[in-house]
Amino acid sequence: MQVIILAAGQGKRMHSRLPKVLQPIAGQAMLKHVINTARALQPESICVVFGHGGDQVRAALPDADLAWAEQAQQLGTGHAVQQAMPHIADHGLALILYGDVPLTRADTLSGLVQASAGEHLALLTVTLEEPKGYGRIVRDDAGKVLAIVEEKDASPAQREICEVNTGILCVPVARLRGWLARLSNNNAQGEYYLTDIIAMAVADGVQVKTSQPAAVWETLGVNNKQQLAELERIHQRNIANRLLEGGVTLIDPARIDVRGELRCANDVEIDVGCIFEGTVELGEGVRIGAYCVLRNVSIAAGTQLSPFCHLDGAQVDTHCSIGPFARLRPGTQLGQDVHVGNFVEIKNSHLGDGTKAGHLAYVGDAEVGREVNIGAGVITANYDGVNKHRTLIGDQAFIGSDSQLIAPVSIGEGAFIAAGSTISRNAPEKELTLSRARQVTLPGWKRPVKKS
Amino acid sequence: MQVIILAAGQGKRMHSRLPKVLQPIAGQAMLKHVINTARALQPESICVVFGHGGDQVRAALPDADLAWAEQAQQLGTGHAVQQAMPHIADHGLALILYGDVPLTRADTLSGLVQASAGEHLALLTVTLEEPKGYGRIVRDDAGKVLAIVEEKDASPAQREICEVNTGILCVPVARLRGWLARLSNNNAQGEYYLTDIIAMAVADGVQVKTSQPAAVWETLGVNNKQQLAELERIHQRNIANRLLEGGVTLIDPARIDVRGELRCANDVEIDVGCIFEGTVELGEGVRIGAYCVLRNVSIAAGTQLSPFCHLDGAQVDTHCSIGPFARLRPGTQLGQDVHVGNFVEIKNSHLGDGTKAGHLAYVGDAEVGREVNIGAGVITANYDGVNKHRTLIGDQAFIGSDSQLIAPVSIGEGAFIAAGSTISRNAPEKELTLSRARQVTLPGWKRPVKKS
Amino acid sequence: MQVIILAAGQGKRMHSRLPKVLQPIAGQAMLKHVINTARALQPESICVVFGHGGDQVRAALPDADLAWAEQAQQLGTGHAVQQAMPHIADHGLALILYGDVPLTRADTLSGLVQASAGEHLALLTVTLEEPKGYGRIVRDDAGKVLAIVEEKDASPAQREICEVNTGILCVPVARLRGWLARLSNNNAQGEYYLTDIIAMAVADGVQVKTSQPAAVWETLGVNNKQQLAELERIHQRNIANRLLEGGVTLIDPARIDVRGELRCANDVEIDVGCIFEGTVELGEGVRIGAYCVLRNVSIAAGTQLSPFCHLDGAQVDTHCSIGPFARLRPGTQLGQDVHVGNFVEIKNSHLGDGTKAGHLAYVGDAEVGREVNIGAGVITANYDGVNKHRTLIGDQAFIGSDSQLIAPVSIGEGAFIAAGSTISRNAPEKELTLSRARQVTLPGWKRPVKKS
Repeated sequence: MQVIILAAGQGKRMHSRLPKVLQPIAGQAMLKHVINTARALQPESICVVFGHGGDQVRAALPDADLAWAEQAQQLGTGHAVQQAMPHIADHGLALILYGDVPLTRADTLSGLVQASAGEHLALLTVTLEEPKGYGRIVRDDAGKVLAIVEEKDASPAQREICEVNTGILCVPVARLRGWLARLSNNNAQGEYYLTDIIAMAVADGVQVKTSQPAAVWETLGVNNKQQLAELERIHQRNIANRLLEGGVTLIDPARIDVRGELRCANDVEIDVGCIFEGTVELGEGVRIGAYCVLRNVSIAAGTQLSPFCHLDGAQVDTHCSIGPFARLRPGTQLGQDVHVGNFVEIKNSHLGDGTKAGHLAYVGDAEVGREVNIGAGVITANYDGVNKHRTLIGDQAFIGSDSQLIAPVSIGEGAFIAAGSTISRNAPEKELTLSRARQVTLPGWKRPVKKS
Repeated sequence: MQVIILAAGQGKRMHSRLPKVLQPIAGQAMLKHVINTARALQPESICVVFGHGGDQVRAALPDADLAWAEQAQQLGTGHAVQQAMPHIADHGLALILYGDVPLTRADTLSGLVQASAGEHLALLTVTLEEPKGYGRIVRDDAGKVLAIVEEKDASPAQREICEVNTGILCVPVARLRGWLARLSNNNAQGEYYLTDIIAMAVADGVQVKTSQPAAVWETLGVNNKQQLAELERIHQRNIANRLLEGGVTLIDPARIDVRGELRCANDVEIDVGCIFEGTVELGEGVRIGAYCVLRNVSIAAGTQLSPFCHLDGAQVDTHCSIGPFARLRPGTQLGQDVHVGNFVEIKNSHLGDGTKAGHLAYVGDAEVGREVNIGAGVITANYDGVNKHRTLIGDQAFIGSDSQLIAPVSIGEGAFIAAGSTISRNAPEKELTLSRARQVTLPGWKRPVKKS
Repeated sequence: MQVIILAAGQGKRMHSRLPKVLQPIAGQAMLKHVINTARALQPESICVVFGHGGDQVRAALPDADLAWAEQAQQLGTGHAVQQAMPHIADHGLALILYGDVPLTRADTLSGLVQASAGEHLALLTVTLEEPKGYGRIVRDDAGKVLAIVEEKDASPAQREICEVNTGILCVPVARLRGWLARLSNNNAQGEYYLTDIIAMAVADGVQVKTSQPAAVWETLGVNNKQQLAELERIHQRNIANRLLEGGVTLIDPARIDVRGELRCANDVEIDVGCIFEGTVELGEGVRIGAYCVLRNVSIAAGTQLSPFCHLDGAQVDTHCSIGPFARLRPGTQLGQDVHVGNFVEIKNSHLGDGTKAGHLAYVGDAEVGREVNIGAGVITANYDGVNKHRTLIGDQAFIGSDSQLIAPVSIGEGAFIAAGSTISRNAPEKELTLSRARQVTLPGWKRPVKKS
């Protein structure tokens, strides 16, 4: 089986410089969703027919397994498929998909391929409550498909038909090649319509089989931002349902956004408003507070995030307590039982087991040992304007509030840095180190007065 | 055409000190919505009939183009309109609106005015699936309106009528004056009902024309907080739809709140949970991360906001990167390519092109040059308890972590302030300036012990 | 009246270590909801039948007024009730509830108890649009209940019946004891079904009365995380409706979560996305900005919270201004007109009237007077690694930016601490106290160069 994906449409109604098929659902181009679904069917090849914004489309999808066919002019769906045919081997089936119909399930397409049974034309149809505007599936009394009749050509009786064409079909390549050659653009739009092959199949005595998806949304296409938003919501609701089925507790399935892969062990609880991007793994019993944003994060069992945490590229071990208002940036590794509190930023640093940084601190490019206490307002001055330097802090060290550690610098095990110190040289282990001006009270001071 | 807005109702069921018509939809009093819609019709005059909380109502709407008529006692809608008549010129049409029916579209009202054609009584009606409780529009076989029959007076057949009165109507002033004079309060409530003029019109041979809004929500009134919340949601959904139609990408149209005017160029993307207040302008390609709150903000092309940003009264130039957890307060101006990072507050300051303030800083009342690096924890001490002072920082200066700049103070171009410095006098350009106590390690220190 | 709550089910489909009846709705175990509703009826006793995870269940509900009956094997609902009977006194009525049906209203149960009138079997039934799968209530022509027929035993005509059994019932204890003794497990599942007592009642000439809840959701049970999420939403919507009825302005009733008790005075406005846990009291005119999280908080009249505030265990007096991005931790007490601004954390501290801590500060274990100004970046160093110490700050003191107050320490009334000071000894009142190294500009400094 070979897949042809039509992805040349302009999408004027998107009001965007981005070609329509690159518009994202769950942070990923619609075309990419279609390609991923196609791949799940393990086809012999995938050929994408591109047109508008073709350079952008190809650049966005540099995958080696894709063949590309250009449709320089938009002369209809039949014309689009014709452009792909040089890339299609002369055997087996062709499955025709659309780059702006992103949510079709692989199971549905497998069913369609099976329905074609290597010889029939298999058409994915769907039954709509309001079929207006769609091509109706006209059948004979025995249920055999006779034709697809477009809205404007339909008789009043035909307009009552609720089964409509989705455009997705599977057809023997040999037959397809012949039919495409016979397509005509002798119509009002002057376009070559792929759907005309249905009539040819019927005329040639090729059976037209149909298959239906489990849900109508699998066949919905996107032509404007309203429809894009609708499919985004459908997709997110589907993801939420899968998480619930897997046993995740979601406080509100309508207020979670997953843009990538979220893997959850048992007894994970996710509060309202959380966003997951990239690959996120949550261990057993992990609790994610409200309004957390996690991207490419791995969190081990028993860790709890308070609300308003922003984690990106972080690895967090078991039983940590993070937030509220904590930010972990790429390269952050937290050991077990680590606490990172409010208004604390950690970047490219490792914090050992039991270490705490509870308040208003910046830890960057640091190797921090176990059971270290990083006081409120502590800052690793890791940047001199051009270079980044590392800070080392030994186990059980205590970094007093508002101290600056000017990297490169090393704080020994069990060292105690007094509050407000500027540490520019290494501090020995188990000793008190500080830099502090004498506290004085100046006589004769007068409180400032309001200037006019 | 002259507009009369009935706004005297008490709104007991709102449980509020605020008069009902001042209850907000999208942050703006319902009455103000009605007035703005009325103004869009360019009427000769607008007269507001006030009653309960009149002082509050008038104070909230000091607009010079409004005439005010007091209805001291609540004796019915007819009585309310009577109070307005001294302000109404003796010609043309009167359009009667309601201060607690905030979402009627101007197009709908134009249609109603047109339907009156200068001589008829034009009534805005609406067709409800469940008309119970509303006055039914009774017509003869030719479709001519005969009467409005209230629920309690309706025959079983009349109760089946689904077209109901909205109360909004347009009528020749001369006719109205006569009919109002003939109103009686001879009814159970002892009130003068405006709807009684329909029967008078029919009796006087004045045609009663009807016009319908595009949507039922245009005619919904607010009597309690549930209805207020419902209309808030309808209004927000309408705004979201308009944004989508204009090409804005909304990740969830049900999770955006716009309380004012949001203008977006092409390719703007707005993530979930954002709130826009006042006037907000977003340039081409701007991306607003989740849970951002923007009020009176202008953001130029290509700038990106990470989640959890709070911007008020700020102007941001192109290609800036802001947040997460950044706060820009009034008077903030950011040049191009500026970065403001987490837990940073900027107030009444200008940051030049390419300047960065990435972590836990407070910049207030400052003029900051280009390509300046403001380190983590830097604070402009702009306040002495009574006066605010300014800080000047030259281009390419480097302000080391946790430094305090005690305003008024000036940092020269290319100056380097060492971490942890307290800068109370001007720092020369291109030199290293610091204030730092010597780092010492004290012998004989003993780690504190737990007190019982 | 005595209550029996069946709470022994395993809940395999929850995929959780937590027994099903402990799964939370609004942060509280479902079983606890049922117990609280039962208590509202002032029953003579409450007996909980536990099974799976019994130790966890009993530990979670240590309430003295509960009797516990173990159902070691899950042999059906009839068997479960049998286990409770040793705890049930031989008089009056037994009301049978389910630990996984959490939202039944007390009024509904009162109605059911009344329907039994001390002698009848009263059954809570509900009318479903899609009754499939439920036991149908079969009545004779006079409307008398004859039987409950399970789906699999129902005739086509019976399957059309939309009134179904909820399982909740009220029955005279003496009758119940007899019927339970006659239950048989001679069925496909080999279980003892409580519903079999209906047929016994009919056979014994005991009338079967029925009563219906106001809403279907009162009878919904939870077997998986989807249903748990559904009931969570229903429950939250109910709470939102009650708040609206009470006059609270909710900007979006679908985006508020209350997990405990939220008491609001008049003219409270709550913006989108807020979460309330424990007991929260909001005084007149309090405004809660978007995305605030409040737990066990009391806020007096006129106080305003900006977005993104996180308050836990705090008491806030009138007319304070808090946030955005403020965090108040347990033991925080704010006087009148206090301002706590962005990136400020307050813990176990009292701030007197008119005091301000506007920017990036940590105030812990402090007693702060009136009209104190706590500058940006100020930190109370309250922890020496093992002990916590208190900081005292007198009225009208001014704590300059980025100062550290090393507790235990006391700042006198009207004292002025210069920016960047490390204060380790008491500072006298009305004087300027500081610790500051001399500002110097070092000659010959060379800007760092990029290392390769």
